[in-house]
Amino acid sequence: MGESWSFLDTVESNFRPLVVIELAKGTKEETIEWFTKRIVDKKANGGAQLLIKPLVMENGVENIYLVGASHLRLLLGAETVGLVKECSDNSMRTFTYSSRKSFKDFADDNHNFLTMAECQYIIKHELENLRAKNEKMIPGYPQAKLYPGKSIVRRLLTSGILVQIFPLHDREALKKLRHSWYGRVKVGYQPLDDIRCYFGETIALYFGFLEYFTFALIPMAVIGIPYYVFAWEDYDKYVMFATFNLLWSTVILEVWKRICAILTYRWGTLLMKRQFEEPRPGFHGVLGINPVTGREEPVYSSLKRQLRIYLVSLPFVCLCLYFSLYVMMIYFDLEQWALDYHEENESNFSSLMLYVPSIIYAVVIEIMNRIYRYAAEFLTSWENHRLESSYQNHLILKVLVFNFLNCFASLFYIAFVLFDMKLLRQSLATLLITSQILNQFAESLLPYWLQKRYNRRMKKRMCSQKTDRDLSIAEQVNMEKEMGTYLGTFDDYLELFLQFGYVSLFSCVYPLAAVFAVLNNITEIYSDALKMCRVYKRPFAEPTANIGVWQLAFETMSVISVVTNCILIGMSPQVDALFPDSKMDLVLTVALVEHLLLAIKFIMAFVIPDKPRDIQMKLAKLEFESLEALKQQVRAFQVQLHFLLIHH
Amino acid sequence: MGESWSFLDTVESNFRPLVVIELAKGTKEETIEWFTKRIVDKKANGGAQLLIKPLVMENGVENIYLVGASHLRLLLGAETVGLVKECSDNSMRTFTYSSRKSFKDFADDNHNFLTMAECQYIIKHELENLRAKNEKMIPGYPQAKLYPGKSIVRRLLTSGILVQIFPLHDREALKKLRHSWYGRVKVGYQPLDDIRCYFGETIALYFGFLEYFTFALIPMAVIGIPYYVFAWEDYDKYVMFATFNLLWSTVILEVWKRICAILTYRWGTLLMKRQFEEPRPGFHGVLGINPVTGREEPVYSSLKRQLRIYLVSLPFVCLCLYFSLYVMMIYFDLEQWALDYHEENESNFSSLMLYVPSIIYAVVIEIMNRIYRYAAEFLTSWENHRLESSYQNHLILKVLVFNFLNCFASLFYIAFVLFDMKLLRQSLATLLITSQILNQFAESLLPYWLQKRYNRRMKKRMCSQKTDRDLSIAEQVNMEKEMGTYLGTFDDYLELFLQFGYVSLFSCVYPLAAVFAVLNNITEIYSDALKMCRVYKRPFAEPTANIGVWQLAFETMSVISVVTNCILIGMSPQVDALFPDSKMDLVLTVALVEHLLLAIKFIMAFVIPDKPRDIQMKLAKLEFESLEALKQQVRAFQVQLHFLLIHH
Repeated sequence: MGESWSFLDTVESNFRPLVVIELAKGTKEETIEWFTKRIVDKKANGGAQLLIKPLVMENGVENIYLVGASHLRLLLGAETVGLVKECSDNSMRTFTYSSRKSFKDFADDNHNFLTMAECQYIIKHELENLRAKNEKMIPGYPQAKLYPGKSIVRRLLTSGILVQIFPLHDREALKKLRHSWYGRVKVGYQPLDDIRCYFGETIALYFGFLEYFTFALIPMAVIGIPYYVFAWEDYDKYVMFATFNLLWSTVILEVWKRICAILTYRWGTLLMKRQFEEPRPGFHGVLGINPVTGREEPVYSSLKRQLRIYLVSLPFVCLCLYFSLYVMMIYFDLEQWALDYHEENESNFSSLMLYVPSIIYAVVIEIMNRIYRYAAEFLTSWENHRLESSYQNHLILKVLVFNFLNCFASLFYIAFVLFDMKLLRQSLATLLITSQILNQFAESLLPYWLQKRYNRRMKKRMCSQKTDRDLSIAEQVNMEKEMGTYLGTFDDYLELFLQFGYVSLFSCVYPLAAVFAVLNNITEIYSDALKMCRVYKRPFAEPTANIGVWQLAFETMSVISVVTNCILIGMSPQVDALFPDSKMDLVLTVALVEHLLLAIKFIMAFVIPDKPRDIQMKLAKLEFESLEALKQQVRAFQVQLHFLLIHH
Repeated sequence: MGESWSFLDTVESNFRPLVVIELAKGTKEETIEWFTKRIVDKKANGGAQLLIKPLVMENGVENIYLVGASHLRLLLGAETVGLVKECSDNSMRTFTYSSRKSFKDFADDNHNFLTMAECQYIIKHELENLRAKNEKMIPGYPQAKLYPGKSIVRRLLTSGILVQIFPLHDREALKKLRHSWYGRVKVGYQPLDDIRCYFGETIALYFGFLEYFTFALIPMAVIGIPYYVFAWEDYDKYVMFATFNLLWSTVILEVWKRICAILTYRWGTLLMKRQFEEPRPGFHGVLGINPVTGREEPVYSSLKRQLRIYLVSLPFVCLCLYFSLYVMMIYFDLEQWALDYHEENESNFSSLMLYVPSIIYAVVIEIMNRIYRYAAEFLTSWENHRLESSYQNHLILKVLVFNFLNCFASLFYIAFVLFDMKLLRQSLATLLITSQILNQFAESLLPYWLQKRYNRRMKKRMCSQKTDRDLSIAEQVNMEKEMGTYLGTFDDYLELFLQFGYVSLFSCVYPLAAVFAVLNNITEIYSDALKMCRVYKRPFAEPTANIGVWQLAFETMSVISVVTNCILIGMSPQVDALFPDSKMDLVLTVALVEHLLLAIKFIMAFVIPDKPRDIQMKLAKLEFESLEALKQQVRAFQVQLHFLLIHH
């Protein structure tokens, strides 16, 4: 292959491994040869023009490859993916190779201009866009069909030849990041920019949201504490607290949009153009013509998908909801039993027993949520959505509806059917605290402990062979490829969403919920950070401009909480006492207040601009410049044409 | 000037007048010379490169100029304004001169490729973009300051030198349009595409909305008729009617978005890029640097504007609202007086007298609306908004809030304070019908009659001089320049908005309202068409992709109407009788139903896609193509670079 390489590729000595490709053991030789040839082949020949190097493991098996790229290749790739970087004049601009000199910190020999995460993202993009030319199938695997334009890597993945592709950790940078992130006990912000440099925008934005949300909950928590300490039971105080909470939750969600715009503007993703969405890897169908691209690719009838959604998925979700309500009724039976037991033989043990049903129920809820999550994933994948975004939307909708009902149905039942405020408070506290403890344990500590044990064993085995403390690249790859894969921010956001529900839906009966949420979130930051740095493989960076559908989910929750809180306050005996003559007036007043609060919420959401003024100005400036540039082009063209016509 | 003209300009014999410029009488000779020179000057010299010809009137005064342009100049202008036209393969694409051959109906000698309205829009755009170079003032008028980049035409307008610019009617096309639009009595759709060709997208979209809205009201009207005919008073029937209305109004507003997308896609405006907004003509301030464009232009402190809005405009609006409520109380006194009178001396006359207060009040409301409209315009213009869009938003907000309260406050008062359903029905009917009659008269018939009288006088005077029936261009200009100026679709939409309020807010007590609305809208189409074709000067075409803020206004109205209808039904004695034991249950049931309806509304609005599937596909296809083109460019560039580096 040597003679086909050009100046665009650097000499081997400069090779810096960025991404690891693991093929299945026993992959045929001709397949490997074809695949590596396509990866290193020139762009003009339809290759990816990257560098690849086999990694010889100690046992001699050669199924792992390291991928890298020359500096120049990466810069051209940055242009292809539409990376936005900071210019020398502090404005953010889409990077192009021809304008490279105007970017901050750019120098031809500065190989740190692109962060490692960006380089890995570029390589991933280039690998995924390596497309079949005239191949009808993967050489050596006749059952793995290809057609012109099909992504080779995706086909290799779905047919099991390619086990995984993952980016390598940068052990030096990770150590520094760990230190500044959670290495020392300190009060302060997370190093979001460093997190973004290392893990990419999606993950950094999650940590940014987690941090923001924690800070935003502090006023609620602070105001909630005296209610507990002084055992305030005056409902006018509760009304004030609930009103504050409702307006506050609107404000924090609106302000988050602004902070999100500030962050993503700084990171360049606010300006990044959306890429054209390719079919998701799991999508299958018969070959047909895509009406949008005009390319030959699998198509799947939309009617069939609708039938699957409405005739299978929908009934299944309803069934799950029914089952969840059934479990809830069992919980109430248990609760009743515990109460009876407590009344019969009153003791410390029996009063402790009062909490047991709630704790059991909380554990069952968590288990059901997790099982349902897998079912939802299976079903949504079976619905065979063409685009990843459509798949995600259907999955999120399924999971959100179920989790909402599963977590909050019992609380709604206690509040609005049993009218038992004491039980509501107790149940809310138990559910919230139990689920937080379970989550922290299942999400981070358990995998961390397993990982640690495995690492220790690995190291021992290696150390027996050599004494060098610094791990070689082979050892690093060997260790990282066994680590778990981080499956995205979905579960983390879901956890926050449910927590927000516990805090806001019934905030007026249990002001202490916000305190627990704050405490949980502080440890959550640490345990999530630990999880990212030590438990999982490094994930590929994903550019993103906002938290997407979660913004809508949080806003919907905050609207629902207006309704629940108004009803709770209306039901309280103290408010009841204010309207001794007529229950009607009470209900009407509550309804009026609720409508007013909702109106204020919507007006506030409408009035608060989604982007801060200076970001708006910067965006307007960029738009103006690009329009001006276009105008200049048109004008130059017209002047050219003019001369042409004259001198003809 | 002759020698500076080039091939881009055609010979004088081809001159087709498109736009009329009327200067103030007695404008200085040097000003005229400078202005016309700038208009005909070459693009490269900063001119507009248009054609201009003075029109010598019979009295010898030369203050009117006709503006035209060569065919080639118009094509290049079409590219500058970003016109979207249909290609030979039926797709819509942005017109560029270099790709002109691929467009439908394009031929070098086909001068009808661009419609006359498009040509006039291009000329208006070019004139408005004629900018000062180094001039410090308008020659001959030292007080009319200029600075580099200031639009010359806007300064001429604000300093009164330029009286008006308006496009000429095309008498042949107008005759044809009139005939197909309202010339014969027929049942069928309006010729929206022809209207769009002649008047532009904004006006065609208004007529499209008017027509759609009328059709959409027909089911409501049809269902409403038996309620009147059979005098149904069962409230379960009313509940059904109201529920149908509420869901139907959501559906029609959502479906309109889809129809709007279909129309504007066909007209090319859905794809048209937004132009960078220049300051509005009336904006003034001290010279400073615009932070977005970096140009020197007037700036006005945002703080000062906020102060004007909150310390002057807001109190004024509140005062007006108070006054409107005060007038309402007078109306109720009158109503009481009429009722007393009727009870004392019962006769046909006295029962007729019962309607008099409502009619008087309706007239007063209309007058107050119109006066307030002027006040709001004055105030908003005094607030000195920089952009036209910001000015419009503040104006619309002011006018909507006042009109809503002014029109509906009395109905709310009757319904929810007096609880008098009979009076509500009577008052609603009188207000609706009176305001419709007044509007039709004031908007179209009166100006039409005045215009007709004036025209007859003009023609008589002219016919005394010549016998030629066909009007010369001079006579046409002379007649049209005296016609009224159409001030935009604002008042027309406002009328529909208020009508929608009358129909939907209290639909369950007066099902016949939809019938009157349908009847009114059918005549409204005719009288508005008459107004556009015969009463007003031809307006400049304005491209638009949707009905803008009115969509939001209609949707808000439909949300409010859910609340009012639920309360009205809850208050009815029949529903009351269903809950004999507990008023509480009644109120709770009503509240529950209301929340359910609102939830269904929001879910429906969320689920129904804003654009039909085929339009989505076409848009995706265009996006894909432009991304592909970009990729090709990048790839070609990379290959080039590659060769360059090798052969260096």
